[in-house]
Amino acid sequence: MKILIDAFGGDNSPEEVIAGTIEALKEESDFVAVLVGKEEVIKNLLEGYEYDKSRVEIINAPGVITCEEEPTVAVRRKPESSICVAFKELKENDEARAFVSAGSTGAVLVGATLKLGRIKGVNRPALCPIMPTAKGDKQVILLDSGANADCKSINLLQFALMGTVYAEALGVENPKVALLSNGTEDEKGNMLNHEVFPMLKAAKGINFVGNIEARDILSGDIDVVVCDGFAGNVAVKAIEGAIKTFMTLMKQGIYSSFKGKLGGMLLKDTFKTLGKKMDYNNHGGALFVGVNKAVIKAHGSSKRAAIKAAVLQAKKYAHFDIADKITAKLELQESGEEA
Amino acid sequence: MKILIDAFGGDNSPEEVIAGTIEALKEESDFVAVLVGKEEVIKNLLEGYEYDKSRVEIINAPGVITCEEEPTVAVRRKPESSICVAFKELKENDEARAFVSAGSTGAVLVGATLKLGRIKGVNRPALCPIMPTAKGDKQVILLDSGANADCKSINLLQFALMGTVYAEALGVENPKVALLSNGTEDEKGNMLNHEVFPMLKAAKGINFVGNIEARDILSGDIDVVVCDGFAGNVAVKAIEGAIKTFMTLMKQGIYSSFKGKLGGMLLKDTFKTLGKKMDYNNHGGALFVGVNKAVIKAHGSSKRAAIKAAVLQAKKYAHFDIADKITAKLELQESGEEA
Repeated sequence: MKILIDAFGGDNSPEEVIAGTIEALKEESDFVAVLVGKEEVIKNLLEGYEYDKSRVEIINAPGVITCEEEPTVAVRRKPESSICVAFKELKENDEARAFVSAGSTGAVLVGATLKLGRIKGVNRPALCPIMPTAKGDKQVILLDSGANADCKSINLLQFALMGTVYAEALGVENPKVALLSNGTEDEKGNMLNHEVFPMLKAAKGINFVGNIEARDILSGDIDVVVCDGFAGNVAVKAIEGAIKTFMTLMKQGIYSSFKGKLGGMLLKDTFKTLGKKMDYNNHGGALFVGVNKAVIKAHGSSKRAAIKAAVLQAKKYAHFDIADKITAKLELQESGEEA
Repeated sequence: MKILIDAFGGDNSPEEVIAGTIEALKEESDFVAVLVGKEEVIKNLLEGYEYDKSRVEIINAPGVITCEEEPTVAVRRKPESSICVAFKELKENDEARAFVSAGSTGAVLVGATLKLGRIKGVNRPALCPIMPTAKGDKQVILLDSGANADCKSINLLQFALMGTVYAEALGVENPKVALLSNGTEDEKGNMLNHEVFPMLKAAKGINFVGNIEARDILSGDIDVVVCDGFAGNVAVKAIEGAIKTFMTLMKQGIYSSFKGKLGGMLLKDTFKTLGKKMDYNNHGGALFVGVNKAVIKAHGSSKRAAIKAAVLQAKKYAHFDIADKITAKLELQESGEEA
């Protein structure tokens, strides 16, 4: 299996992308990494590492799409960019099974939808991060976290179905699906929620458990959280910001006294483990669910550890092969609606 | 000045509400607390405290509106409830300047809008919590955090204007107002954002600085965050949940080893201060901005410290007397639109 990696995506590319790729290659043996980007630069950087040369390929792509560019325009005008070259390869080469990029989210989403194509039956693919929860190793996935700022009820229903298939692939039995709302009672929500709630309740093949408040996303009681891409983006980033702020203030508190510094030293390992667990980047990137192959969007600020996690996640996800299962789940729903 | 307090609102009422009220009375001297609820119960509970009897009054209200009741129906059918009796008094008694409740958010909002009335020119009042930030004593206010699940652009514009007046009253000079969005670039956002962005840019009397991502709400760089009540609710509750989860996991980490326990002991004070700072309940409740007097919605789970903070905040807010300033700001805007 080949995994394509955008060597020129993200704030710390290409250095950290290449470092992370090498680390992923060392961790697992059954894939080939295909670095897409400026060939000469990649070659030079690779010289600094020892690795199995039969497991690394380079596809030259002289262009880069930046985060400042309008995604639709950039994808059309820059066929030679690393993102566009990678999607072309992903579509045309059967061996290429997944793509990882820490570059422009918009360009990755547009490129995936236009160049790779949607799974049969899917109206709108969705960005779906995996997040840690308060309960041990239990994780929660949330979709859409930002691909579709405005959604219709049919989109949210499809997110619930796709999320269920994804959670099942991750090993969750009968995953619990909840609708993100402004209260737990059935009648809470905005107009979109009011429309989609009965649809989710009636849907076949999902275990819909009702509304969830944003404060319970990380509780570990729910496996799949469904919402439009605007609310999802707000939720995921609010969580990220709250934890960052908390850690900043904790550090200030620790460094403000001798007792604090001593305590901080003793808790160094605890903080490290915790920081790693809470940082959703370490759980791999966000999967773009609903397109024909595995597309992983890693955080723009990804360093080698996050890239490594995303590459390994891409490999795992490519193995799931969930496209058919998603289509089946969607068809089950449609037949139900006709009945 | 009299401050009305819903003695029968919240998970820990009436005991904690009365305890918090007594603490507030001890902290500041220039107000009278009016407890609204079942008179006999309140009287019995008050017997357990020493306090200046000339500063506590009771208004009997035999009914209670629970969080399970549909707010509009409950407010109409239960004129004898503590919330309805309090709003009647607040409207009719000039000395009564503020109301604090930890009860049903919906009933407080409906009661305030229907019985107390909106400030001249305000279409939709908004729930506006004060939150701590990463920058020392700097705070941020966010509106709407849940009163209006579906909003129009005019509502968001008014939230920006009301938020500016509120922040100014809190002592912030030329408060920075940002629109909550799914990216910082001007063109980011959902349809509502796209509509309101140019309105905010053109608005008179506000210092609009553009879009903000949810991860930067607590950064301390912004004074007023504007959004619809659904996204705002998601943001505020996601922050609350993230911090709660982080603290839970931190405790688990600390208790898992001897070294951890020792470190935890040394950092006990740091954690305590931090927990207090990050818990937005300690910053008072959320102000319901846009109605004719000061209405503070405290968290349903408020204990005495949160009630005390909310009562003192209510007093402070009643002093601001911002209704005229809000009307003036709205009129300035309208004259601008006509020009």
